[in-house]
Amino acid sequence: MTKPKVFEKPTGVKDYLPHAVAKLRRIERDVLECMRQWGYEQIMTPTIEYYDTVGVASATSDQKLFKLLNQRGTTIVLRSDMTAPIARVVGSLLKDEPFPIRLSYHGNVFRAFEEEGGREAEFYQTGVELVGDASPEADAEVIALAIASLQAAGVPSFKIAMGHVGFLNGLFQETLPGLESEQEALKACLLQRDHVGYRDVIRKLSIDPAWQRELEDILRLRGGQEVCAQALELSGNAGARAAIRHLCEVWDVLEAYGLQEHVLIDLTMIGDFSYYTGMTFEGYASQLGFPVVSGGRYDNLLAQFGRPAAATGFGLKTTRILDVVEDEAEAMGAALVVYESSERAAAMAAAADMRAQGRAVVTALVAAEDKGQLQSRAQAGLIEDGSFIYNGREYKALNAFFGKGEQE
Amino acid sequence: MTKPKVFEKPTGVKDYLPHAVAKLRRIERDVLECMRQWGYEQIMTPTIEYYDTVGVASATSDQKLFKLLNQRGTTIVLRSDMTAPIARVVGSLLKDEPFPIRLSYHGNVFRAFEEEGGREAEFYQTGVELVGDASPEADAEVIALAIASLQAAGVPSFKIAMGHVGFLNGLFQETLPGLESEQEALKACLLQRDHVGYRDVIRKLSIDPAWQRELEDILRLRGGQEVCAQALELSGNAGARAAIRHLCEVWDVLEAYGLQEHVLIDLTMIGDFSYYTGMTFEGYASQLGFPVVSGGRYDNLLAQFGRPAAATGFGLKTTRILDVVEDEAEAMGAALVVYESSERAAAMAAAADMRAQGRAVVTALVAAEDKGQLQSRAQAGLIEDGSFIYNGREYKALNAFFGKGEQE
Repeated sequence: MTKPKVFEKPTGVKDYLPHAVAKLRRIERDVLECMRQWGYEQIMTPTIEYYDTVGVASATSDQKLFKLLNQRGTTIVLRSDMTAPIARVVGSLLKDEPFPIRLSYHGNVFRAFEEEGGREAEFYQTGVELVGDASPEADAEVIALAIASLQAAGVPSFKIAMGHVGFLNGLFQETLPGLESEQEALKACLLQRDHVGYRDVIRKLSIDPAWQRELEDILRLRGGQEVCAQALELSGNAGARAAIRHLCEVWDVLEAYGLQEHVLIDLTMIGDFSYYTGMTFEGYASQLGFPVVSGGRYDNLLAQFGRPAAATGFGLKTTRILDVVEDEAEAMGAALVVYESSERAAAMAAAADMRAQGRAVVTALVAAEDKGQLQSRAQAGLIEDGSFIYNGREYKALNAFFGKGEQE
Repeated sequence: MTKPKVFEKPTGVKDYLPHAVAKLRRIERDVLECMRQWGYEQIMTPTIEYYDTVGVASATSDQKLFKLLNQRGTTIVLRSDMTAPIARVVGSLLKDEPFPIRLSYHGNVFRAFEEEGGREAEFYQTGVELVGDASPEADAEVIALAIASLQAAGVPSFKIAMGHVGFLNGLFQETLPGLESEQEALKACLLQRDHVGYRDVIRKLSIDPAWQRELEDILRLRGGQEVCAQALELSGNAGARAAIRHLCEVWDVLEAYGLQEHVLIDLTMIGDFSYYTGMTFEGYASQLGFPVVSGGRYDNLLAQFGRPAAATGFGLKTTRILDVVEDEAEAMGAALVVYESSERAAAMAAAADMRAQGRAVVTALVAAEDKGQLQSRAQAGLIEDGSFIYNGREYKALNAFFGKGEQE
């Protein structure tokens, strides 16, 4: 194998220059502040976890986990999400904390290198977990907070699609009992949003035509509250009907929040069935084809960390959101303080005063003979378009003569 | 090897609960804001880097690097500092950016598991790099900003010890030419601050007694500006004298900043000689035995990334600073809004209003018959000590009856 070039970095990871960092930090700050206002307290967990604990418990499929060996031969993972580590903390450090527990996080997560496809190996997520509350209120709170978080992040336009893993599971139990591979084929089509393929699979099934119609009819189950009534008519399966009734209650709470315009019921939506246990949702920004937020109920995870409990939550794809929010981050707009060495103490005092007022200030020692020329050039620039260039960089003010005030 | 227990995490890494996170985030925010005011713009780089590029260029010794193999058999490191990645960016993405370049960062860095000793495998650093300026002004700016950063972090009392690798190198060249292992033995003693051992090594040297005296005399070279004059008298070596003259100039600039009370010249201070090329410094908080900040000039690093340039900077040990700053972080102090299902819309509207004012609010559906009892209990608690407990958690206000205002 060849050595990487000096400026190369591993596949799938990124550098963020100041402009992007300012934007990412602004989103991080505003979203975490929104979560705080909803009573969620921030926690931080390590970048590395044991594969056998957090790794296997996570929602990430095994081949996508970023695995490595430590010096004792134990398999370590770079965390693939924050939900499993938080479940570990709820089951250990927070084991005496009463439910419900509301926690928020902002952190980087990892996927195994995918050389093809240009997928990211490291990206940022910002999210919450609401642990110890199985009610529709809790599911609705988490969706409402996801909406508030997208708004705080500045995502201009988005829609939340909400489903329930219990509905499709119940429906398949009713129509395709024991036919595992057929169920898998249909789920795969739904996951790809391949409705043509889905209808193809149904047509080839040798089952009661009534069941075939029922399976095909779910493709229409997409819309507002009316979808609940349609779904209840469609399926007689107890599990499917219980799922729908839960979703209806979540919808009622979301109506109380006044958020129904942002939400769509989509019963064909399929998440990770081995992980989610109830309501699931995804949020799409109108400019993007992939979700900017996803979440749902995962009532089986906490038991793996010794403290069985209901739980629901979501994670914002913060790095993706970078691309859809307005580019409001300002350039630094620093002031420049130039001085000769004899003026140093006065210059540093002037810079300190300006910094105490929150101003960004760069100081520079200059030769006496350059000062006059710089000052006239700066004055012209400041009058003309409010800034001037010094050493290739833009400044918004110059302080070159002490006791004579700042030249703006 | 045995499987880890479900709640275990790898050796040397930590969970941070809400109280610690609030404190860490406060420090991070205030220090980065201080750096912004000094004209430093924040960048972010990946957690993983190639061993052959950033890994070998970093100041961290090889056996402390957190190495792992990727799926193609290339050695990857979890970054051990931010300086080498930033040098990579300055040599690539920022290669057309004119010098001087001022960059700041906050990030987690890694050390290989050290099973013994309880050292941390992952911790946080906050720092700056000033690239493309070889002047004493630049070194002084970086020390002055380190002091301002420690103050912004809230470290109550600290001292910066400043040295220069050129002084000891010159002195050893003069007194022990070619005696590599003797030089190493003396450096090792200084690194351990083992003055007894240092004197022992000198006594056993078969060199001119004048050189022995000179080597022993440097132990007294610790103090204010007067140390510069003493050091110039001590050594005739050109390199050592140039180093001292540079340090004197840095001291003069620090005096112009009015910072001399925070700084001590310590010519026995020894950093990583293979990495630093000039002035080095460490900052000690009065309560701690290990440095809370370290930095210095590293004029050889940038050349390894194809853009030779002078550079100086520092990194705050942010996680260590957590232990020395006052515990000013407040508990969340959320308000509790309780409602029956018939009052849901009014409750959510009330919660939204309070959140719009920046208040943290938790909402809870309660049974009608519990509301009266909760209200009297809350009122008693609020009058008595300004808070009440609900479900094991403390709240600062209750809103239970809509249209009748908030009960505080």
